[in-house]
Amino acid sequence: MEQKDKQTAEKFTVRTDLAIEAREIAREGREEAGEPDGVQVETSHTKDYELTRVHILTEQGSQTMGKPMGSYITLEAQKLKENDPESHSSIVAVLSKELQHLAKLKKQGTALVVGLGNWNITPDALGPKVVSRILVTRHLRDTLPEEMAQTVRPVAAVSPGVMGITGIETGEIVKGIVEKMHPDLVIAIDALAARKTSRINAAIQLSDTGLAPGAGVGNKRKMLSEETLGVPVIAIGVPTVVDAATLVNDTMDRMLTEMRSQTEEHSPFYQMLMDMESEDKYGLITELLTPAAENMFVTPKEVDAVVDRLADIIAKAVNMAMQPGLTEEDWSLFG
Amino acid sequence: MEQKDKQTAEKFTVRTDLAIEAREIAREGREEAGEPDGVQVETSHTKDYELTRVHILTEQGSQTMGKPMGSYITLEAQKLKENDPESHSSIVAVLSKELQHLAKLKKQGTALVVGLGNWNITPDALGPKVVSRILVTRHLRDTLPEEMAQTVRPVAAVSPGVMGITGIETGEIVKGIVEKMHPDLVIAIDALAARKTSRINAAIQLSDTGLAPGAGVGNKRKMLSEETLGVPVIAIGVPTVVDAATLVNDTMDRMLTEMRSQTEEHSPFYQMLMDMESEDKYGLITELLTPAAENMFVTPKEVDAVVDRLADIIAKAVNMAMQPGLTEEDWSLFG
Amino acid sequence: MEQKDKQTAEKFTVRTDLAIEAREIAREGREEAGEPDGVQVETSHTKDYELTRVHILTEQGSQTMGKPMGSYITLEAQKLKENDPESHSSIVAVLSKELQHLAKLKKQGTALVVGLGNWNITPDALGPKVVSRILVTRHLRDTLPEEMAQTVRPVAAVSPGVMGITGIETGEIVKGIVEKMHPDLVIAIDALAARKTSRINAAIQLSDTGLAPGAGVGNKRKMLSEETLGVPVIAIGVPTVVDAATLVNDTMDRMLTEMRSQTEEHSPFYQMLMDMESEDKYGLITELLTPAAENMFVTPKEVDAVVDRLADIIAKAVNMAMQPGLTEEDWSLFG
Amino acid sequence: MEQKDKQTAEKFTVRTDLAIEAREIAREGREEAGEPDGVQVETSHTKDYELTRVHILTEQGSQTMGKPMGSYITLEAQKLKENDPESHSSIVAVLSKELQHLAKLKKQGTALVVGLGNWNITPDALGPKVVSRILVTRHLRDTLPEEMAQTVRPVAAVSPGVMGITGIETGEIVKGIVEKMHPDLVIAIDALAARKTSRINAAIQLSDTGLAPGAGVGNKRKMLSEETLGVPVIAIGVPTVVDAATLVNDTMDRMLTEMRSQTEEHSPFYQMLMDMESEDKYGLITELLTPAAENMFVTPKEVDAVVDRLADIIAKAVNMAMQPGLTEEDWSLFG
Repeated sequence: MEQKDKQTAEKFTVRTDLAIEAREIAREGREEAGEPDGVQVETSHTKDYELTRVHILTEQGSQTMGKPMGSYITLEAQKLKENDPESHSSIVAVLSKELQHLAKLKKQGTALVVGLGNWNITPDALGPKVVSRILVTRHLRDTLPEEMAQTVRPVAAVSPGVMGITGIETGEIVKGIVEKMHPDLVIAIDALAARKTSRINAAIQLSDTGLAPGAGVGNKRKMLSEETLGVPVIAIGVPTVVDAATLVNDTMDRMLTEMRSQTEEHSPFYQMLMDMESEDKYGLITELLTPAAENMFVTPKEVDAVVDRLADIIAKAVNMAMQPGLTEEDWSLFG
Repeated sequence: MEQKDKQTAEKFTVRTDLAIEAREIAREGREEAGEPDGVQVETSHTKDYELTRVHILTEQGSQTMGKPMGSYITLEAQKLKENDPESHSSIVAVLSKELQHLAKLKKQGTALVVGLGNWNITPDALGPKVVSRILVTRHLRDTLPEEMAQTVRPVAAVSPGVMGITGIETGEIVKGIVEKMHPDLVIAIDALAARKTSRINAAIQLSDTGLAPGAGVGNKRKMLSEETLGVPVIAIGVPTVVDAATLVNDTMDRMLTEMRSQTEEHSPFYQMLMDMESEDKYGLITELLTPAAENMFVTPKEVDAVVDRLADIIAKAVNMAMQPGLTEEDWSLFG
Repeated sequence: MEQKDKQTAEKFTVRTDLAIEAREIAREGREEAGEPDGVQVETSHTKDYELTRVHILTEQGSQTMGKPMGSYITLEAQKLKENDPESHSSIVAVLSKELQHLAKLKKQGTALVVGLGNWNITPDALGPKVVSRILVTRHLRDTLPEEMAQTVRPVAAVSPGVMGITGIETGEIVKGIVEKMHPDLVIAIDALAARKTSRINAAIQLSDTGLAPGAGVGNKRKMLSEETLGVPVIAIGVPTVVDAATLVNDTMDRMLTEMRSQTEEHSPFYQMLMDMESEDKYGLITELLTPAAENMFVTPKEVDAVVDRLADIIAKAVNMAMQPGLTEEDWSLFG
Repeated sequence: MEQKDKQTAEKFTVRTDLAIEAREIAREGREEAGEPDGVQVETSHTKDYELTRVHILTEQGSQTMGKPMGSYITLEAQKLKENDPESHSSIVAVLSKELQHLAKLKKQGTALVVGLGNWNITPDALGPKVVSRILVTRHLRDTLPEEMAQTVRPVAAVSPGVMGITGIETGEIVKGIVEKMHPDLVIAIDALAARKTSRINAAIQLSDTGLAPGAGVGNKRKMLSEETLGVPVIAIGVPTVVDAATLVNDTMDRMLTEMRSQTEEHSPFYQMLMDMESEDKYGLITELLTPAAENMFVTPKEVDAVVDRLADIIAKAVNMAMQPGLTEEDWSLFG
């Protein structure tokens, strides 16, 4: 069992960056009800969103889930995809509160916000778009009135690009900057990959574990974490794409379920599909995708507008969490 | 038979804008070999591309193909997707020659280049991107030296936007402009929808029939044609997306073929899938797609760069075809 | 005297698009106090802005001012240049009210918003930037719930480009579109040229007279007015640049004033400068500008951000004036 | 005399980044003909450009010129402002040769190209625009065929932003990256400030001395030099703006010269202006500029297009200099 869990873990890291999906997969393979050992889950919801807190508490939980130990907070809301200012306000408020709680920054602690991803590829541009909306204050300390300077937390923000653009491992660039400016916290923002089409642009995950490698559209290999950077790292991510194989897989699963009632359950073909491990089926689909489709991703038509709005929501939540002493009106002084 | 062809025709217009795909579909449904009645096809190829000329000659051919009578010239090249300047040069040359041949413009005839599509959605931005690279000369006639003025054809260029952006039918805007400037030819450029993932960004279609409605990513309802505008219309298009249902369909077809050898051919389930008309299967997939996937499209990761290069190729071909009296060096005088 | 006024009028049209500046010039040349004949002026102010209404009532007033008869409402506020959400809200409110008053649109009258200017040149991109923020509703009438459809005014919006981009007179494009869609009102938005550096990005002018030719950075020759388009035209403009000669002239005037106290008033050189008509002095400066400076304009460093904010203010005022039945919350339904 | 030179030096660093202008100023203040002590100058020209090599050889030369010791190579060509592919090719070739000569890189030495400046402000975006066109190869070494890997020099490229965007001294970011990737050479590209309007976008300066602080439109305080970074730094810059005061000063100088013939030479006012040190006159103008004009810069209308073309020229020259083993055809393999 453990053996099997481990194998699964190795495989599905290529498919989901979301702890809530890792949990779904872990539960699929189990007979008992309840959470995997070493994993604790809390959920809550309002009319605007669902919130799931997944805490991976032990090494065994980490192996089962294929994710480092720590807390993963996921906010899900189909309205994230729509232009709905009212629900977005309430989402900003809760994200800001959760972020502040994860961050545990002391009053004048310095934060560095890092926008990962490739600004030339719309669904991968989330991180850079958030960074362009961050209240950058670190360089203003000396020019602010004394009273204001006491209130404003020093925040810096960079978008280091991806290796295909710079020729340098993104982790190296971030580490180089961290070693110069010595922030007390890094907040890393990135586009993620999801396993379900329905979660595209409809979930935001915060975690205190850093960012896992291989995620999203672009190519970002080095882990950004307290271990590699020497300071705590909070990751904020949104699944903005699924790969083509995931889409096909999702649809085929629905097709099989649909057909179950229309065909003899025991026909060998049907049985064969049903018997396949989901990993194997996914692998088969990947093989069968035309070479043309291999590099394809699936994205909503209005992806530019949606990613802009998501960047807005996340940037506001970060600004609010980092600058509790400022009102939203004050922000304009720094922009 | 005719009845059936007609139904098919009505359906597949939502799925392909390419005459070569319409032809494939028309041939699938037939027992006899050879082209459908009223359709004539020529093909040729070089190391850089394949060229297929589909001529729809009769009303019956038009019904079978689901496309207006006229000539459709499609250049296919996987290298269109790559950064390959050498093959792109030879593609520009042949496109320019074919375009000149279709255009039949008299020496000083005026052309209006129309870039259709939504500039905010990358794969739909092909038309506006081409327009931004067109040599616009119509307003310069009076300021050019006499000799040059004799050589330069008056060309104008507009990107009218899509109805979701302007609130006005795109066809109405184009007609309003045509009635003011009285061009001798309209060249309309648009992103198209293809039926096969392998054709995304790998084919360019020229035709002398105007642009069929409902195409591409955006929403462009009115036909742009000689009938509606009162001047000949040449359409240039590239399939830049397939919808999610098409991707699933393509992959499932491959899956079924693959499985045929591994399962009993006569199992009821297998048989059922094999017996479905492709239209019905496509419809089933559409129904089964999650609501989230319905508005999704499938596009390559590097779509921004690819669409830029395609716009470059098409703009060069149009400029070359419209300005046979100018060398590429001369172009810089107008840019 | 009249002769002289007329000459001046002919000249200064190349220098200012603002009625308040035309009035300043007209008053400079006069001995009597008070407004020129046929011109009536009202001013008011709040802590956030100054508002000046210039009404040109007679043909003589029009000649003196070098502007068509009609109403010109100019809002001035240095805070327009800053990121000051509070004062911007109150500016949006007053602009919207003034616009509604000028527009005199009947309840379901249709409006076409036209964004003039070149989107490739930042300080000339004001019009296109406003258009991209307009609530476009004209195409949605049939899909809205009955009750909503009664409330929403049909609004369309286009950015026709400039002649250097399209090869077509902008006025022709607009006229072509107007003849197709038959709006009841055209609202034309453009960047203007000012005569004083201090007014750059610090004034918004509304008028019911259409747009005068020759304005702004780009090249827009045809008048857009009720006379040319057949429907009322409201113009909204912001001076976003001054030309290099204006900057030099402004500074030299200050220099001369400064030096007056430090030198003998009757020195021939000083006297010569003081005796020059301002037009002649401006002409001399233009001649003396290096050829390199001739095509230069003067613009603030943060011009991109300032023009974005101005576009936001104007778009909000237009949306509010056009859709009195919708709250700002409702807007998101259309965006 | 030395005293005076030193004062001048301190002052004019705020006004010019070009060694050829520093030389002009140094010569203005001297009675003797010839170059300042410790400065050696060579000039040459072709039909396409003029080339001036200024070598500052001694500490005294450095003080007189207000610039660090080293070589400054300036290419001047009015055609840099135009779309003139032919002359641009010959400029690319000579820049590439000069750059290779300054760089003295060993065969497989690694280069880091740094694009300084603010990408949100067009005339300051030169550096980032160059970087986006650089052949980035450092990360591809392991995936290239053995033979190709021998030919291709490892090149990385970053645009670190400006302090107003990141909150971090740009020099710190660059130093952090340099300490991680250990390049053998840094090539830093930036927009510069010139003293003469005629040089805007019409000169390219290479130097082996790093980049002097306070330059250009943005705010970049730390020196990037071998001393601060620990590796040789080649700077490439183009003057893309002059400040408003410079424009006024230039024009007034021409005005005074013009008027000399028309007025009594010995009038006190004229004499006063003529007697002013150029620094004092410049200071006076700065004081007299309206507060509004203080933050203004002067830039050509077509600045976006011109900066794009300059970025293209510089990127090609850098690519050619860094990759002597590749043809321009080969470049597409890496883009």
